[in-house]
Amino acid sequence: MVAKSQIKLITSLAQKKYRQQHGLFVVEGIKGIKELLKSRFKMQILYVLSENKNDFESEKTEEIDQNSLKKISFLKSPQKALAVFKIPQDGEINFPDSGLQLVLDDVRDPGNLGTIIRLCDWFGITDLICSPQTVDCYNPKVVQATMGSLGRVNVRYIDLELFFEQNKLPVFGAFMDGIPIYDEKLPENAILVLGNEGNGISEAVEKQVQHRISIPQFGNVTAESLNVATAGAILMNTFRERGGR
Amino acid sequence: MVAKSQIKLITSLAQKKYRQQHGLFVVEGIKGIKELLKSRFKMQILYVLSENKNDFESEKTEEIDQNSLKKISFLKSPQKALAVFKIPQDGEINFPDSGLQLVLDDVRDPGNLGTIIRLCDWFGITDLICSPQTVDCYNPKVVQATMGSLGRVNVRYIDLELFFEQNKLPVFGAFMDGIPIYDEKLPENAILVLGNEGNGISEAVEKQVQHRISIPQFGNVTAESLNVATAGAILMNTFRERGGR
Repeated sequence: MVAKSQIKLITSLAQKKYRQQHGLFVVEGIKGIKELLKSRFKMQILYVLSENKNDFESEKTEEIDQNSLKKISFLKSPQKALAVFKIPQDGEINFPDSGLQLVLDDVRDPGNLGTIIRLCDWFGITDLICSPQTVDCYNPKVVQATMGSLGRVNVRYIDLELFFEQNKLPVFGAFMDGIPIYDEKLPENAILVLGNEGNGISEAVEKQVQHRISIPQFGNVTAESLNVATAGAILMNTFRERGGR
Repeated sequence: MVAKSQIKLITSLAQKKYRQQHGLFVVEGIKGIKELLKSRFKMQILYVLSENKNDFESEKTEEIDQNSLKKISFLKSPQKALAVFKIPQDGEINFPDSGLQLVLDDVRDPGNLGTIIRLCDWFGITDLICSPQTVDCYNPKVVQATMGSLGRVNVRYIDLELFFEQNKLPVFGAFMDGIPIYDEKLPENAILVLGNEGNGISEAVEKQVQHRISIPQFGNVTAESLNVATAGAILMNTFRERGGR
Protein backbone atom coordinates (compact mmCIF):
# COMPACT_ATOMS: atom_id res chain seq x y z
CA MET A 1 0.00 0.00 0.00
CA VAL A 2 1.15 3.47 -0.86
CA ALA A 3 -0.63 6.36 0.88
CA LYS A 4 -2.88 8.45 -1.34
CA SER A 5 -0.90 11.58 -0.58
CA GLN A 6 2.28 9.83 -1.70
CA ILE A 7 0.64 8.64 -4.95
CA LYS A 8 -0.43 12.21 -5.58
CA LEU A 9 3.07 13.53 -4.88
CA ILE A 10 4.80 10.99 -7.13
CA THR A 11 2.43 11.35 -10.07
CA SER A 12 2.75 15.15 -9.81
CA LEU A 13 6.46 14.72 -10.58
CA ALA A 14 5.57 14.18 -14.24
CA GLN A 15 5.38 17.97 -14.35
CA LYS A 16 8.39 20.23 -14.17
CA LYS A 17 6.80 22.73 -11.82
CA TYR A 18 6.16 20.06 -9.19
CA ARG A 19 9.63 18.56 -9.65
CA GLN A 20 11.07 21.99 -8.97
CA GLN A 21 8.70 22.67 -6.07
CA HIS A 22 9.55 19.39 -4.32
CA GLY A 23 13.12 19.05 -5.58
CA LEU A 24 12.39 15.44 -6.54
CA PHE A 25 12.30 13.24 -9.64
CA VAL A 26 11.38 9.66 -10.49
CA VAL A 27 13.53 6.83 -11.83
CA GLU A 28 11.99 3.54 -12.94
CA GLY A 29 13.60 0.14 -13.45
CA ILE A 30 16.14 -1.78 -11.38
CA LYS A 31 19.10 -1.05 -13.64
CA GLY A 32 18.50 2.68 -13.89
CA ILE A 33 18.00 3.00 -10.13
CA LYS A 34 21.19 1.03 -9.41
CA GLU A 35 23.17 3.25 -11.75
CA LEU A 36 21.91 6.39 -10.02
CA LEU A 37 22.65 4.94 -6.57
CA LYS A 38 26.32 4.84 -7.64
CA SER A 39 26.25 8.55 -8.51
CA ARG A 40 26.07 11.88 -6.66
CA PHE A 41 22.27 11.62 -6.57
CA LYS A 42 20.58 10.89 -3.24
CA MET A 43 17.59 8.58 -3.12
CA GLN A 44 14.59 9.52 -1.02
CA ILE A 45 12.51 6.35 -1.29
CA LEU A 46 12.43 3.15 -3.32
CA TYR A 47 9.40 1.01 -4.10
CA VAL A 48 10.16 -2.51 -5.27
CA LEU A 49 8.17 -5.70 -5.90
CA SER A 50 8.71 -8.24 -3.12
CA GLU A 51 10.42 -10.75 -5.43
CA ASN A 52 13.04 -8.14 -6.33
CA LYS A 53 13.61 -6.82 -2.84
CA ASN A 54 16.98 -8.52 -2.53
CA ASP A 55 18.28 -6.57 -5.52
CA PHE A 56 18.68 -3.57 -3.21
CA GLU A 57 20.30 -3.00 0.17
CA SER A 58 18.99 0.46 0.96
CA GLU A 59 17.04 1.07 4.15
CA LYS A 60 14.79 3.38 2.21
CA THR A 61 13.18 0.41 0.46
CA GLU A 62 9.49 -0.36 0.66
CA GLU A 63 7.81 -3.40 -0.84
CA ILE A 64 5.03 -2.69 -3.25
CA ASP A 65 2.49 -4.81 -5.14
CA GLN A 66 1.87 -4.67 -8.89
CA ASN A 67 -1.36 -2.72 -8.49
CA SER A 68 0.11 0.04 -6.37
CA LEU A 69 3.15 0.21 -8.64
CA LYS A 70 0.84 0.81 -11.58
CA LYS A 71 -0.66 3.78 -9.75
CA ILE A 72 2.66 5.58 -9.32
CA SER A 73 4.38 4.53 -12.56
CA PHE A 74 4.66 6.76 -15.64
CA LEU A 75 5.16 3.73 -17.89
CA LYS A 76 2.59 1.71 -19.78
CA SER A 77 4.35 -1.43 -18.58
CA PRO A 78 5.74 -0.59 -15.14
CA GLN A 79 9.20 -1.91 -14.29
CA LYS A 80 9.85 -3.86 -11.09
CA ALA A 81 11.01 -0.85 -9.12
CA LEU A 82 10.39 2.88 -8.89
CA ALA A 83 12.53 5.31 -6.92
CA VAL A 84 12.23 8.95 -5.98
CA PHE A 85 15.53 10.84 -6.07
CA LYS A 86 16.46 14.34 -4.92
CA ILE A 87 17.38 16.91 -7.55
CA PRO A 88 20.88 18.09 -6.59
CA GLN A 89 21.39 21.77 -5.94
CA ASP A 90 23.77 23.26 -8.48
CA GLY A 91 26.76 24.79 -6.79
CA GLU A 92 28.77 27.51 -8.46
CA ILE A 93 29.27 26.59 -12.08
CA ASN A 94 32.91 26.31 -13.07
CA PHE A 95 33.11 24.99 -16.55
CA PRO A 96 36.31 23.19 -17.48
CA ASP A 97 38.39 25.15 -19.97
CA SER A 98 39.56 22.06 -21.78
CA GLY A 99 38.11 18.88 -23.26
CA LEU A 100 35.03 18.53 -25.40
CA GLN A 101 31.87 20.25 -24.22
CA LEU A 102 28.41 19.94 -25.65
CA VAL A 103 25.87 22.78 -25.78
CA LEU A 104 22.19 22.24 -26.61
CA ASP A 105 20.22 25.19 -27.95
CA ASP A 106 16.56 24.38 -27.23
CA VAL A 107 16.40 20.61 -27.80
CA ARG A 108 12.76 19.89 -26.95
CA ASP A 109 12.17 16.16 -27.36
CA PRO A 110 12.70 14.13 -24.15
CA GLY A 111 13.87 11.07 -26.11
CA ASN A 112 16.48 13.16 -27.91
CA LEU A 113 17.84 14.69 -24.71
CA GLY A 114 17.96 11.27 -23.02
CA THR A 115 19.82 9.77 -25.99
CA ILE A 116 22.25 12.71 -26.02
CA ILE A 117 22.98 12.28 -22.29
CA ARG A 118 23.70 8.59 -22.95
CA LEU A 119 26.01 9.60 -25.80
CA CYS A 120 27.84 12.10 -23.55
CA ASP A 121 28.44 9.27 -21.10
CA TRP A 122 29.77 7.04 -23.89
CA PHE A 123 32.11 9.70 -25.24
CA GLY A 124 33.34 10.93 -21.86
CA ILE A 125 31.66 14.33 -22.01
CA THR A 126 30.99 15.13 -18.36
CA ASP A 127 29.38 18.55 -18.77
CA LEU A 128 26.31 19.14 -20.89
CA ILE A 129 25.22 22.77 -21.15
CA CYS A 130 21.57 23.39 -22.02
CA SER A 131 19.66 26.55 -22.85
CA PRO A 132 16.83 27.23 -20.37
CA GLN A 133 14.27 26.20 -23.03
CA THR A 134 15.83 22.77 -23.49
CA VAL A 135 13.60 20.01 -22.08
CA ASP A 136 14.17 19.31 -18.37
CA CYS A 137 16.62 16.45 -17.76
CA TYR A 138 14.49 15.21 -14.83
CA ASN A 139 11.47 14.69 -17.10
CA PRO A 140 10.56 10.98 -16.66
CA LYS A 141 10.92 10.29 -20.39
CA VAL A 142 14.39 11.83 -20.42
CA VAL A 143 15.44 9.84 -17.35
CA GLN A 144 14.15 6.64 -18.97
CA ALA A 145 16.02 7.29 -22.21
CA THR A 146 19.34 8.00 -20.43
CA MET A 147 19.50 4.37 -19.29
CA GLY A 148 21.32 5.32 -16.09
CA SER A 149 23.78 7.71 -17.71
CA LEU A 150 22.24 10.74 -15.96
CA GLY A 151 24.34 10.04 -12.87
CA ARG A 152 27.59 10.43 -14.82
CA VAL A 153 26.83 13.58 -16.80
CA ASN A 154 26.37 17.04 -15.25
CA VAL A 155 23.47 18.67 -17.03
CA ARG A 156 23.39 22.45 -16.50
CA TYR A 157 20.73 24.90 -17.59
CA ILE A 158 22.14 28.33 -18.18
CA ASP A 159 21.55 31.35 -20.37
CA LEU A 160 23.80 30.54 -23.31
CA GLU A 161 24.94 34.15 -23.69
CA LEU A 162 26.31 34.02 -20.15
CA PHE A 163 27.95 30.71 -20.92
CA PHE A 164 29.66 31.97 -24.05
CA GLU A 165 30.90 35.08 -22.22
CA GLN A 166 32.95 32.85 -19.90
CA ASN A 167 34.11 30.48 -22.58
CA LYS A 168 37.47 30.63 -24.31
CA LEU A 169 37.30 27.44 -26.38
CA PRO A 170 36.66 27.38 -30.14
CA VAL A 171 32.95 26.94 -30.90
CA PHE A 172 31.69 24.49 -33.56
CA GLY A 173 28.01 24.47 -34.51
CA ALA A 174 26.03 21.93 -36.56
CA PHE A 175 24.31 23.51 -39.58
CA MET A 176 22.69 21.91 -42.62
CA ASP A 177 24.84 24.15 -44.85
CA GLY A 178 28.03 23.94 -42.78
CA ILE A 179 31.45 22.80 -44.00
CA PRO A 180 31.71 18.98 -44.14
CA ILE A 181 33.21 17.97 -40.81
CA TYR A 182 35.98 16.03 -42.57
CA ASP A 183 37.25 19.21 -44.19
CA GLU A 184 37.72 20.94 -40.82
CA LYS A 185 40.72 20.46 -38.57
CA LEU A 186 39.18 19.53 -35.23
CA PRO A 187 40.87 20.57 -31.99
CA GLU A 188 40.88 18.34 -28.92
CA ASN A 189 39.44 21.11 -26.76
CA ALA A 190 36.26 22.53 -28.22
CA ILE A 191 32.61 23.32 -27.78
CA LEU A 192 30.07 21.60 -30.02
CA VAL A 193 26.62 23.22 -30.36
CA LEU A 194 23.49 21.33 -31.48
CA GLY A 195 20.26 23.18 -32.21
CA ASN A 196 16.53 22.71 -31.93
CA GLU A 197 14.81 19.83 -33.78
CA GLY A 198 12.85 22.08 -36.12
CA ASN A 199 14.77 25.35 -36.26
CA GLY A 200 18.39 24.41 -35.66
CA ILE A 201 20.69 26.83 -33.85
CA SER A 202 19.09 30.18 -32.98
CA GLU A 203 20.36 33.45 -34.42
CA ALA A 204 21.68 34.68 -31.07
CA VAL A 205 23.72 31.51 -30.54
CA GLU A 206 24.85 31.38 -34.19
CA LYS A 207 26.79 34.60 -33.56
CA GLN A 208 28.96 32.71 -31.08
CA VAL A 209 29.77 29.93 -33.54
CA GLN A 210 33.16 30.28 -35.25
CA HIS A 211 33.02 27.03 -37.24
CA ARG A 212 29.84 25.97 -39.06
CA ILE A 213 30.07 22.23 -39.67
CA SER A 214 27.83 19.59 -41.24
CA ILE A 215 27.64 15.85 -41.85
CA PRO A 216 27.96 15.05 -45.56
CA GLN A 217 25.14 13.12 -47.21
CA PHE A 218 26.00 10.23 -49.47
CA GLY A 219 24.72 9.81 -53.00
CA ASN A 220 21.73 11.90 -54.02
CA VAL A 221 20.80 14.63 -51.58
CA THR A 222 17.30 13.53 -50.62
CA ALA A 223 16.87 13.39 -46.86
CA GLU A 224 16.16 16.80 -45.40
CA SER A 225 17.97 16.42 -42.13
CA LEU A 226 19.19 14.00 -39.53
CA ASN A 227 17.61 13.66 -36.12
CA VAL A 228 19.54 15.84 -33.63
CA ALA A 229 20.56 12.84 -31.49
CA THR A 230 21.91 10.84 -34.42
CA ALA A 231 23.68 13.90 -35.83
CA GLY A 232 25.12 14.46 -32.35
CA ALA A 233 26.30 10.84 -32.23
CA ILE A 234 28.23 11.22 -35.50
CA LEU A 235 29.73 14.60 -34.55
CA MET A 236 30.77 13.57 -31.02
CA ASN A 237 32.32 10.39 -32.42
CA THR A 238 34.20 12.36 -35.08
CA PHE A 239 35.55 14.87 -32.53
CA ARG A 240 36.69 12.03 -30.29
CA GLU A 241 38.31 10.16 -33.13
CA ARG A 242 39.97 13.07 -34.94
CA GLY A 243 40.13 15.88 -32.42
CA GLY A 244 43.67 17.20 -31.87
CA ARG A 245 45.21 15.24 -34.73
CA MET B 1 -17.53 14.28 -41.71
CA VAL B 2 -15.85 10.94 -42.03
CA ALA B 3 -18.11 7.88 -42.13
CA LYS B 4 -18.05 5.68 -39.05
CA SER B 5 -16.93 2.69 -41.07
CA GLN B 6 -14.01 4.71 -42.42
CA ILE B 7 -13.00 5.86 -38.91
CA LYS B 8 -13.07 2.23 -37.85
CA LEU B 9 -10.95 1.17 -40.82
CA ILE B 10 -8.35 3.89 -40.33
CA THR B 11 -7.96 3.43 -36.60
CA SER B 12 -7.64 -0.33 -37.13
CA LEU B 13 -4.48 0.40 -39.15
CA ALA B 14 -2.62 0.96 -35.89
CA GLN B 15 -2.39 -2.84 -35.80
CA LYS B 16 -0.19 -4.86 -38.12
CA LYS B 17 -2.80 -7.54 -38.79
CA TYR B 18 -5.29 -4.99 -40.12
CA ARG B 19 -2.61 -3.22 -42.15
CA GLN B 20 -1.80 -6.55 -43.77
CA GLN B 21 -5.46 -7.49 -44.22
CA HIS B 22 -6.31 -4.20 -45.94
CA GLY B 23 -2.89 -3.55 -47.52
CA LEU B 24 -3.02 0.01 -46.19
CA PHE B 25 -1.09 2.27 -43.83
CA VAL B 26 -1.40 5.79 -42.45
CA VAL B 27 0.86 8.82 -42.89
CA GLU B 28 0.29 12.01 -40.91
CA GLY B 29 1.56 15.54 -41.56
CA ILE B 30 1.77 17.59 -44.73
CA LYS B 31 5.51 17.16 -45.20
CA GLY B 32 5.54 13.38 -44.74
CA ILE B 33 2.59 12.93 -47.10
CA LYS B 34 4.22 15.12 -49.76
CA GLU B 35 7.42 13.12 -49.55
CA LEU B 36 5.53 9.84 -50.02
CA LEU B 37 3.56 11.26 -52.96
CA LYS B 38 6.91 11.68 -54.75
CA SER B 39 7.74 7.99 -54.21
CA ARG B 40 6.57 4.62 -55.51
CA PHE B 41 3.77 4.58 -52.92
CA LYS B 42 0.20 5.08 -54.10
CA MET B 43 -2.19 7.14 -52.03
CA GLN B 44 -5.73 5.94 -51.47
CA ILE B 45 -7.24 8.94 -49.72
CA LEU B 46 -6.12 12.17 -48.11
CA TYR B 47 -7.90 14.11 -45.36
CA VAL B 48 -6.80 17.69 -44.93
CA LEU B 49 -8.00 20.74 -42.98
CA SER B 50 -9.74 23.22 -45.27
CA GLU B 51 -7.11 25.93 -44.72
CA ASN B 52 -4.42 23.54 -45.98
CA LYS B 53 -6.33 22.16 -48.92
CA ASN B 54 -4.28 24.12 -51.43
CA ASP B 55 -1.13 22.36 -50.27
CA PHE B 56 -2.23 19.34 -52.31
CA GLU B 57 -3.36 18.80 -55.89
CA SER B 58 -4.60 15.24 -55.65
CA GLU B 59 -8.17 14.39 -56.61
CA LYS B 60 -8.27 11.99 -53.71
CA THR B 61 -8.41 14.87 -51.25
CA GLU B 62 -11.24 15.35 -48.78
CA GLU B 63 -11.61 18.29 -46.44
CA ILE B 64 -11.87 17.43 -42.79
CA ASP B 65 -12.50 19.40 -39.60
CA GLN B 66 -10.33 19.32 -36.47
CA ASN B 67 -12.78 17.12 -34.59
CA SER B 68 -12.99 14.43 -37.23
CA LEU B 69 -9.24 14.54 -37.73
CA LYS B 70 -8.81 13.85 -34.04
CA LYS B 71 -10.93 10.74 -34.40
CA ILE B 72 -8.74 9.18 -37.09
CA SER B 73 -5.33 10.44 -35.93
CA PHE B 74 -2.82 8.33 -33.98
CA LEU B 75 -1.12 11.45 -32.63
CA LYS B 76 -1.79 13.31 -29.40
CA SER B 77 -1.58 16.54 -31.37
CA PRO B 78 -2.94 15.72 -34.83
CA GLN B 79 -1.15 17.28 -37.81
CA LYS B 80 -3.06 19.17 -40.49
CA ALA B 81 -3.38 16.21 -42.82
CA LEU B 82 -3.72 12.44 -42.68
CA ALA B 83 -3.39 10.13 -45.67
CA VAL B 84 -3.99 6.45 -46.25
CA PHE B 85 -1.44 4.82 -48.56
CA LYS B 86 -1.32 1.37 -50.14
CA ILE B 87 1.35 -1.04 -48.98
CA PRO B 88 3.27 -1.99 -52.15
CA GLN B 89 3.46 -5.65 -53.08
CA ASP B 90 7.03 -6.86 -52.98
CA GLY B 91 8.14 -8.22 -56.31
CA GLU B 92 10.93 -10.74 -56.59
CA ILE B 93 13.74 -9.68 -54.35
CA ASN B 94 17.01 -9.11 -56.17
CA PHE B 95 19.48 -7.65 -53.77
CA PRO B 96 22.27 -5.59 -55.26
CA ASP B 97 25.63 -7.32 -54.97
CA SER B 98 27.51 -4.09 -54.38
CA GLY B 99 27.25 -1.00 -52.22
CA LEU B 100 26.52 -0.81 -48.54
CA GLN B 101 23.55 -2.80 -47.23
CA LEU B 102 22.07 -2.72 -43.78
CA VAL B 103 20.56 -5.74 -42.02
CA LEU B 104 18.47 -5.46 -38.85
CA ASP B 105 18.22 -8.51 -36.61
CA ASP B 106 15.03 -8.00 -34.55
CA VAL B 107 15.04 -4.25 -33.92
CA ARG B 108 11.80 -3.82 -31.97
CA ASP B 109 11.37 -0.15 -31.14
CA PRO B 110 9.38 1.83 -33.75
CA GLY B 111 11.33 5.02 -33.06
CA ASN B 112 14.61 3.20 -33.65
CA LEU B 113 13.47 1.68 -36.94
CA GLY B 114 12.12 5.04 -38.13
CA THR B 115 15.39 6.76 -37.24
CA ILE B 116 17.39 4.02 -39.00
CA ILE B 117 15.27 4.40 -42.18
CA ARG B 118 15.95 8.15 -42.08
CA LEU B 119 19.68 7.40 -41.68
CA CYS B 120 19.60 4.99 -44.65
CA ASP B 121 18.11 7.78 -46.74
CA TRP B 122 20.84 10.19 -45.59
CA PHE B 123 23.63 7.77 -46.33
CA GLY B 124 22.26 6.54 -49.66
CA ILE B 125 21.43 3.02 -48.49
CA THR B 126 18.47 2.06 -50.66
CA ASP B 127 17.87 -1.46 -49.37
CA LEU B 128 17.20 -2.22 -45.72
CA ILE B 129 16.87 -5.91 -44.89
CA CYS B 130 14.92 -6.78 -41.75
CA SER B 131 14.38 -10.06 -39.93
CA PRO B 132 10.69 -11.01 -39.77
CA GLN B 133 10.62 -10.11 -36.04
CA THR B 134 11.80 -6.57 -36.68
CA VAL B 135 9.01 -4.02 -36.06
CA ASP B 136 6.77 -3.39 -39.09
CA CYS B 137 7.89 -0.38 -41.14
CA TYR B 138 4.24 0.62 -41.71
CA ASN B 139 3.62 0.96 -37.96
CA PRO B 140 2.40 4.58 -37.53
CA LYS B 141 5.20 5.39 -35.07
CA VAL B 142 7.81 4.13 -37.52
CA VAL B 143 6.28 6.11 -40.39
CA GLN B 144 6.23 9.24 -38.21
CA ALA B 145 9.88 8.84 -37.22
CA THR B 146 11.06 8.34 -40.82
CA MET B 147 10.09 11.93 -41.65
CA GLY B 148 9.24 11.04 -45.23
CA SER B 149 12.31 8.89 -45.87
CA LEU B 150 10.23 5.70 -46.15
CA GLY B 151 9.53 6.47 -49.82
CA ARG B 152 13.22 6.38 -50.68
CA VAL B 153 14.30 3.23 -48.85
CA ASN B 154 13.14 -0.29 -49.75
CA VAL B 155 12.45 -2.08 -46.50
CA ARG B 156 12.32 -5.86 -46.95
CA TYR B 157 11.35 -8.47 -44.38
CA ILE B 158 13.03 -11.76 -45.07
CA ASP B 159 14.35 -14.76 -43.19
CA LEU B 160 17.95 -13.69 -42.60
CA GLU B 161 19.31 -17.19 -43.23
CA LEU B 162 17.81 -17.06 -46.72
CA PHE B 163 19.26 -13.61 -47.21
CA PHE B 164 22.76 -14.64 -46.20
CA GLU B 165 22.62 -17.69 -48.47
CA GLN B 166 22.28 -15.39 -51.49
CA ASN B 167 24.79 -12.87 -50.30
CA LYS B 168 28.43 -12.71 -51.39
CA LEU B 169 29.50 -9.47 -49.67
CA PRO B 170 31.66 -9.36 -46.53
CA VAL B 171 29.50 -9.18 -43.40
CA PHE B 172 30.26 -6.77 -40.54
CA GLY B 173 28.29 -7.00 -37.29
CA ALA B 174 28.11 -4.56 -34.37
CA PHE B 175 29.10 -6.16 -31.05
CA MET B 176 29.93 -4.61 -27.70
CA ASP B 177 33.19 -6.60 -27.66
CA GLY B 178 34.01 -6.21 -31.34
CA ILE B 179 37.22 -4.79 -32.82
CA PRO B 180 37.22 -0.95 -32.79
CA ILE B 181 35.90 0.07 -36.18
CA TYR B 182 38.95 2.28 -36.78
CA ASP B 183 41.23 -0.75 -36.61
CA GLU B 184 39.35 -2.53 -39.42
CA LYS B 185 39.89 -1.90 -43.09
CA LEU B 186 36.41 -1.19 -44.39
CA PRO B 187 35.42 -2.20 -47.92
CA GLU B 188 33.14 -0.07 -50.06
CA ASN B 189 30.79 -3.00 -50.69
CA ALA B 190 29.67 -4.62 -47.49
CA ILE B 191 26.80 -5.69 -45.28
CA LEU B 192 26.42 -4.12 -41.86
CA VAL B 193 24.32 -5.99 -39.28
CA LEU B 194 22.72 -4.30 -36.24
CA GLY B 195 21.06 -6.38 -33.52
CA ASN B 196 18.16 -6.21 -31.12
CA GLU B 197 18.01 -3.41 -28.51
CA GLY B 198 18.41 -5.73 -25.53
CA ASN B 199 20.12 -8.84 -26.86
CA GLY B 200 22.21 -7.65 -29.78
CA ILE B 201 22.79 -9.93 -32.76
CA SER B 202 21.29 -13.42 -32.38
CA GLU B 203 23.45 -16.54 -32.33
CA ALA B 204 22.16 -17.75 -35.69
CA VAL B 205 23.01 -14.46 -37.39
CA GLU B 206 26.32 -14.13 -35.55
CA LYS B 207 27.54 -17.22 -37.45
CA GLN B 208 27.20 -15.23 -40.69
CA VAL B 209 29.30 -12.33 -39.40
CA GLN B 210 32.93 -12.37 -40.53
CA HIS B 211 33.98 -9.07 -38.91
CA ARG B 212 32.89 -8.21 -35.36
CA ILE B 213 33.18 -4.44 -34.95
CA SER B 214 32.47 -1.93 -32.17
CA ILE B 215 32.48 1.80 -31.48
CA PRO B 216 35.24 2.73 -29.02
CA GLN B 217 34.20 4.49 -25.81
CA PHE B 218 36.16 7.51 -24.70
CA GLY B 219 37.65 7.94 -21.24
CA ASN B 220 36.40 5.64 -18.51
CA VAL B 221 34.25 2.79 -19.71
CA THR B 222 31.00 3.59 -17.91
CA ALA B 223 28.07 3.59 -20.31
CA GLU B 224 26.81 0.10 -20.97
CA SER B 225 25.82 0.51 -24.56
CA LEU B 226 24.69 2.91 -27.23
CA ASN B 227 21.16 3.02 -28.56
CA VAL B 228 20.97 0.92 -31.75
CA ALA B 229 19.98 3.92 -33.90
CA THR B 230 22.84 6.12 -32.66
CA ALA B 231 25.32 3.24 -33.00
CA GLY B 232 23.96 2.69 -36.51
CA ALA B 233 24.45 6.38 -37.29
CA ILE B 234 28.12 6.25 -36.31
CA LEU B 235 28.79 2.97 -38.14
CA MET B 236 27.00 3.98 -41.36
CA ASN B 237 28.83 7.30 -41.33
CA THR B 238 32.18 5.57 -40.80
CA PHE B 239 31.55 3.10 -43.65
CA ARG B 240 30.60 5.94 -45.96
CA GLU B 241 33.58 8.03 -45.00
CA ARG B 242 36.27 5.31 -44.94
CA GLY B 243 34.85 2.42 -46.95
CA GLY B 244 37.06 1.37 -49.85
CA ARG B 245 40.02 3.55 -48.84
